[in-house]
Amino acid sequence: MHFRLIGNVLGALILFVGLAMLLPLGVSLIYAEGDAKALLISLSITTLSGLILYGLTRGSTKEIGNKDGFAIVALGWICACLFGSLPYLFSGSLGSFVDCYFESASGFTTTGATVITFIERLPHGILFWRSLTHWLGGMGIILLSLAILPFLGIGGMQLYKAEVPGPVVDKLAPRVRETARTLWKVYVGLSALEATFLLMGGMGWFEALCHTFGTMATGGFSTKSTSIGFYRSAYFEIVIIFFMLVAGANFSLHYQFLKGKFSVFWRSAEFRFYMMVIMICITLVTINLRLDFHYNLSESLRYASFQVSSIVTTTGYTTADFGSWPSFSQYLLLILMFVGGCAGSTGGSIKCLRNLLLLKQGYRELYRHIHPRAVVPIKLGGKVVPPGVMESIWGFFLLYIFFFVAASIIMAILGLDLVSAIASVAASLGNIGPGLGLVGPANNYAHIPFIGKWVLVFCMLLGRLEIYTVIILLVPEFWRK
Amino acid sequence: MHFRLIGNVLGALILFVGLAMLLPLGVSLIYAEGDAKALLISLSITTLSGLILYGLTRGSTKEIGNKDGFAIVALGWICACLFGSLPYLFSGSLGSFVDCYFESASGFTTTGATVITFIERLPHGILFWRSLTHWLGGMGIILLSLAILPFLGIGGMQLYKAEVPGPVVDKLAPRVRETARTLWKVYVGLSALEATFLLMGGMGWFEALCHTFGTMATGGFSTKSTSIGFYRSAYFEIVIIFFMLVAGANFSLHYQFLKGKFSVFWRSAEFRFYMMVIMICITLVTINLRLDFHYNLSESLRYASFQVSSIVTTTGYTTADFGSWPSFSQYLLLILMFVGGCAGSTGGSIKCLRNLLLLKQGYRELYRHIHPRAVVPIKLGGKVVPPGVMESIWGFFLLYIFFFVAASIIMAILGLDLVSAIASVAASLGNIGPGLGLVGPANNYAHIPFIGKWVLVFCMLLGRLEIYTVIILLVPEFWRK
Repeated sequence: MHFRLIGNVLGALILFVGLAMLLPLGVSLIYAEGDAKALLISLSITTLSGLILYGLTRGSTKEIGNKDGFAIVALGWICACLFGSLPYLFSGSLGSFVDCYFESASGFTTTGATVITFIERLPHGILFWRSLTHWLGGMGIILLSLAILPFLGIGGMQLYKAEVPGPVVDKLAPRVRETARTLWKVYVGLSALEATFLLMGGMGWFEALCHTFGTMATGGFSTKSTSIGFYRSAYFEIVIIFFMLVAGANFSLHYQFLKGKFSVFWRSAEFRFYMMVIMICITLVTINLRLDFHYNLSESLRYASFQVSSIVTTTGYTTADFGSWPSFSQYLLLILMFVGGCAGSTGGSIKCLRNLLLLKQGYRELYRHIHPRAVVPIKLGGKVVPPGVMESIWGFFLLYIFFFVAASIIMAILGLDLVSAIASVAASLGNIGPGLGLVGPANNYAHIPFIGKWVLVFCMLLGRLEIYTVIILLVPEFWRK
Repeated sequence: MHFRLIGNVLGALILFVGLAMLLPLGVSLIYAEGDAKALLISLSITTLSGLILYGLTRGSTKEIGNKDGFAIVALGWICACLFGSLPYLFSGSLGSFVDCYFESASGFTTTGATVITFIERLPHGILFWRSLTHWLGGMGIILLSLAILPFLGIGGMQLYKAEVPGPVVDKLAPRVRETARTLWKVYVGLSALEATFLLMGGMGWFEALCHTFGTMATGGFSTKSTSIGFYRSAYFEIVIIFFMLVAGANFSLHYQFLKGKFSVFWRSAEFRFYMMVIMICITLVTINLRLDFHYNLSESLRYASFQVSSIVTTTGYTTADFGSWPSFSQYLLLILMFVGGCAGSTGGSIKCLRNLLLLKQGYRELYRHIHPRAVVPIKLGGKVVPPGVMESIWGFFLLYIFFFVAASIIMAILGLDLVSAIASVAASLGNIGPGLGLVGPANNYAHIPFIGKWVLVFCMLLGRLEIYTVIILLVPEFWRK
């Protein structure tokens, strides 16, 4: 472990978070609702802390090692969430520190779960910061999942190299910057495109930006209490569905597509699986809503398309209170919370790639019991998946289920009913946002007990950082020389 | 596939089921409640069908192969359930054929879920048959899990050979009979012991036998609507807890113990895990009931001990309506439905052995991310678990979760609320019996829609026969030459 080096990177990161506060500061000056002071204080504290840490730890000439990578990723997100909570704290928008940290973590982890009941009462500067944390978090995730995790060998993430020969590095430090630059261009470009579409539809620039941030990061914070449902606009829903699906797909594919390889989406086994899951589930929910709910066919299709896309991509925007839908639709959405977007997207949860490979292994084991002596490798896109990668995916899946069960048990201890306990953890661990029951789309997380909020914050970080990265810091073995 | 041979074994099995009906026939003659005729007809049809099939397929000199083994196991249980449903059908005790088959399958799979609301109204002969199906099913399971499944390489079952060098065969046909004879002696002996204890406590011989059948098979059918809670007797509860725990432990261990190796329980990693899970969960539920429910400390401990033991061993007897307990206790019991007894017991579900190895792999993967180049084998009781066995366990776990999700989705489509949909499938797949919500201990499965009952029957068979055995018959590959 090179503590000096870790401190240096963290210092730079905190400085960056601080400088990002200039944007909401600008917004708050335009709207002049009295939140500028809070943002200025937050900005000063954050940039100064970043500068001091950066300055004190300068001059490390060490290479970033494996362990340093884990520490930087986990501590980086924890620090970003901490400093990101300052604007809420100083503006008095939220009651307690835990609420501020919850909202900030929900932002940076692109979850979108909120403790704010009356969103429209918050000043514009604070709301802009709230949505911006999504977008920054999404930016971090692209870097993390396409450049850092494959290097650390986390849960099958190294498969990109086989699946998508995109801009993926083989060594951590030297080419991270280059990968980041390329992919962020795609991210910024797609964001600009979405904002333009929303503006063209007549959405104000403030709301268009905030909803773009929430979409592209698969976050889900809205500037309206009733989320996208507020607009009652098919146009906005179609635009947002499209960009949610884009944000939930592997950014390497977008990069390849822009390079002119138009068949790249169709050739990706994971992308096909992702679209197939979405199409099937939209169909099922549409039928269920049409038959067992008061929607007509076009309403059923419209609400089903939006909600399925929103949950699979782990965005969490809503156009209807799906908590009042028939139990089949609710249950299907709950299960989709465990599917998630593609690997290399801003989407969270277990991810399509892993689910696909797990299903393949399940079938493979069946086959092996028929032909005990046959050697049947698991393939993805025609290439054999190495056993070590499969084991890593198994490990990930198991830890995911383990933490889901453990955290939901704690939520039940705190007195939540079964459905709310299960859904709150599924929605936090999968970085979705709204769950079911008491944390459904018609409610929020404000009423969750103090300890429960910290548990869910931990789940958001666990899920967002692919579990290993957070939990590995808690294993004593990690700290041994 | 040797169809003649399969038919021959099935014929013998059906004949055996038919002859077993002599016992309830005797009971019905003693009580003279008008069910003797129905039992006699059932007995005649069953024995005759068995004899004819046996006679027609005589003279096969082939060895039993892998595929034949799968077909015999799956078809054997399906046939037993079918002929076992005749007494319900002919006595008019149950309304429809699906109800009769459900009750019979619930018996032979040692699940204990019932569609009967007023159990006390049924004649004694029918009730005796109902409980006897448990006991016969339990006998079949011991044979299956200790002699047949290891041979077929199902989901880690071959681990006995490493873990318990007991009376386990290496080849299917020749020594199955010997293994069966030895283990059944243990099974019969333990059953006799429990019945004696229950009789000593003042239970009538009929109820003592029925409850012994339900306990030793980890079944859960009672002769009372309120299950063991009817007796309000701490003595009966202690006896039944003890024998539930015995029935949920590996029968190879009992065999070894009786041979004088008294340390065998303590030396088994799986048994230690099993007892640890039970102890921890009893403590947690006791605390939860004491703090958040109206029980005093001794009541809390008493009800928690019984219910946790009953669910972990997958028996399903109840002494209280745990559906009204605080949500934490309910949720913990729901999760325990996925733990199950030890491998090689009459208990169902995923089983302690597999859960233990899965947790070990989860931790191993964490360790591997810290030391990427280290080779860390997974060990059980000091011995390395071969990678192929781990893959088989993974496959089992995945298929278990897959069928759980798929079946509970169907239950939700049929209109069950979320908790009931989840719990009904968890309780059927894990061969427990009572679930939560509308299928909780205060209710039963009578109100489940027609299709739902067949889905749950399928789940009971899937769970009982370790998934592979049933599902493999549905894979087209299985039927190719």
